[in-house]
Amino acid sequence: MATAAKAILLIGDGLGDRPIAALGDKTPLEAADTPHLDSIAADGECGLLDPIAPGVRPGSDTAHLALLGYDPHRTYTGRGPFEAAGIGMDVRGGDVCFRCNFSTVDDDMTVVDRRAGRISEGTRELASALDGMEIEGAACLFKESVEHRAALIVRGEGLGHDVSDTDPHEEGVKVHQAAGGDAASQKTAVVVNEFVRRSHEILSKHPVNQKRAADGLRPANIALPRGAGVAPHLEPFQERYGVTGACIVEVGLIKGLARYLQMEVIDVPGATGGRDTDELALARAVVEAIRRHAFVLCNLKAPDLGGHDDDPQQKMEAACKLDRLAGYLREHVGDQAFLMVTADHSTPCVVRDHSGDPVPIAIIGPGVRTDDVTAFGERPCAHGGLHRIRGSDLMNILTNLMAVQEKFGA
Amino acid sequence: MATAAKAILLIGDGLGDRPIAALGDKTPLEAADTPHLDSIAADGECGLLDPIAPGVRPGSDTAHLALLGYDPHRTYTGRGPFEAAGIGMDVRGGDVCFRCNFSTVDDDMTVVDRRAGRISEGTRELASALDGMEIEGAACLFKESVEHRAALIVRGEGLGHDVSDTDPHEEGVKVHQAAGGDAASQKTAVVVNEFVRRSHEILSKHPVNQKRAADGLRPANIALPRGAGVAPHLEPFQERYGVTGACIVEVGLIKGLARYLQMEVIDVPGATGGRDTDELALARAVVEAIRRHAFVLCNLKAPDLGGHDDDPQQKMEAACKLDRLAGYLREHVGDQAFLMVTADHSTPCVVRDHSGDPVPIAIIGPGVRTDDVTAFGERPCAHGGLHRIRGSDLMNILTNLMAVQEKFGA
Repeated sequence: MATAAKAILLIGDGLGDRPIAALGDKTPLEAADTPHLDSIAADGECGLLDPIAPGVRPGSDTAHLALLGYDPHRTYTGRGPFEAAGIGMDVRGGDVCFRCNFSTVDDDMTVVDRRAGRISEGTRELASALDGMEIEGAACLFKESVEHRAALIVRGEGLGHDVSDTDPHEEGVKVHQAAGGDAASQKTAVVVNEFVRRSHEILSKHPVNQKRAADGLRPANIALPRGAGVAPHLEPFQERYGVTGACIVEVGLIKGLARYLQMEVIDVPGATGGRDTDELALARAVVEAIRRHAFVLCNLKAPDLGGHDDDPQQKMEAACKLDRLAGYLREHVGDQAFLMVTADHSTPCVVRDHSGDPVPIAIIGPGVRTDDVTAFGERPCAHGGLHRIRGSDLMNILTNLMAVQEKFGA
Repeated sequence: MATAAKAILLIGDGLGDRPIAALGDKTPLEAADTPHLDSIAADGECGLLDPIAPGVRPGSDTAHLALLGYDPHRTYTGRGPFEAAGIGMDVRGGDVCFRCNFSTVDDDMTVVDRRAGRISEGTRELASALDGMEIEGAACLFKESVEHRAALIVRGEGLGHDVSDTDPHEEGVKVHQAAGGDAASQKTAVVVNEFVRRSHEILSKHPVNQKRAADGLRPANIALPRGAGVAPHLEPFQERYGVTGACIVEVGLIKGLARYLQMEVIDVPGATGGRDTDELALARAVVEAIRRHAFVLCNLKAPDLGGHDDDPQQKMEAACKLDRLAGYLREHVGDQAFLMVTADHSTPCVVRDHSGDPVPIAIIGPGVRTDDVTAFGERPCAHGGLHRIRGSDLMNILTNLMAVQEKFGA
């Protein structure tokens, strides 16, 4: 087969790390036994990738925007829009979106519990009671997420997104009044403050909370928006690249981004997003999806968890999960699609958070210019033929190989 | 130690060069015996750096702007502002600044000597006589620098900086009339021309010049502004990076930039800026400063001189000075701070001026991803794990390692 018109982008979330003394100055990925990833490196082309730019610490959202070819500097204002899209809300360009908590306040509007006793039941009914208000001519759409989490969309004309949080981010202090950084955002702030006031009025007497009170549980008697962001006008994936794409990921935020780009979002039973996730279930879903789509993005969350927990052993196990996932893909997809393996950012154990260190990348498929790298790791891949590239390069590299990219010029 | 929250950026001014036949086709840095720099390369991560962009020939000012994370394309209009700040003038955003010479003109306003007999005494008194004029509503601030050099600030409303030089840059021709490239700059030109006229009037009868005449010396009987630039509005270093920085350099222009960024500028006795400079005095000052600051920039001027003089031997000796400086820092700072060694530009002997060739870079510190490079030089470093980065990447890379950079996204 001369070439393949399809590609799989496999992302080990937070996979990159730094040398760790206890691992003999290897990184968890370098120390882990990853025969499939190593064979992809050996048979393919390797390099280093800066998801956004050298040294820049990416979020999961900004990194995935960049990897999919959308400039986060021009499109990203906050997490709200992708959170809202991730729970299935119909987010439209220009919507001002917020993450929200159901919280507990006392009569004085002092926050007693930011998570309303980590409420897990009845939030759908509570959200439904808040959804669809109209305030000052703006529509307020509200939907529950998992546990105490929810999202708010404020939709209307002339609304800004430079709006401060109503959630004070600590307990024992009063609910904040939202404030706008400019005239348009002040208009949004007025809507948000009235929404918060009404949410307290409505939720305080809601049957779900009456039952919680009877059960000795803290009432979810207010909704507190934070993290304002305006939904960007993003060209859908298919319009931009001329092929359809699917997204098989475990994280709501990335699902939200994919929905936003009108990619098919496929939920996989057994994909928990935890260290117990069923990586082969993810792999089977990818194999199934690449039959119907030219492009499939798959993200395995587990490596990121080991980094956040400063647990190199856990991170090595997660690398092995990624290895099995990649091995299954290679075995079942073969030359039918290019396979690119990389990460959305580093989450070094020593940092316990995302860092700006570059991540390894390898690509295999028909016609790829192989190099001398024989192991998939941060430092082996630094010797590869791809050199040091950026997230914004990925889709160009893939669509070039897939032969679906239009020529620039004549 | 897991990581360090501090960083030292050590710059060998003009250090980069090209292979020289007389050195066995090595560069001066490659030919010099630099055991400390080589051990930093061996124990750290190396690469090539384009201070601005591949092939672009930087000035010292634009290079240092870029290395400190400020885009010179957006902020730099001329050398004037940093020259003025470098001699301790209170430069403010929007000021139109000029470098000036005290010169000698005859009665016909023809320039007899651009440097007024390389005047070295009495310039403070002369400058004082010109400082503080008000012309057309604009304030004219004037201060002497070394020898025949000085700076002029024109401060006022609606002034442009596209102003041609009054200094004709050659002798035997008349003083030029400044001209403005647009209406606002024309307004500045009117001020400058009147300033030059008055400077001649005032200086001609100044006691310093009467004494010079009695001594048979050429009078410094006019001040000639050139190199107009508008002082940019630059975010101070601490506001941008959230940590304080100090600057230990030998060149006034770079001191000016650092003052402009409100970094602490530390003068070091024995640091002459020449080939006789006391590099260990610089090193001790850095060790002292890094106790009080999270970031210290140190520039050793000597390598640049060898390049400008087309003197490979002198440049090799300067590389050894940099080596001793780096060795002292490594010995006395150790893992307490990241140490990054690089250059602000190449000054190849054969060019005798700044060039656009990339420069070597090495970084050492806790958690840095080591590579296989074992020598600090232009070509050895080209094999390093950093690959080829830009000046604008440096502060992102350092603040990432120092764990003081905010995450972009969620």
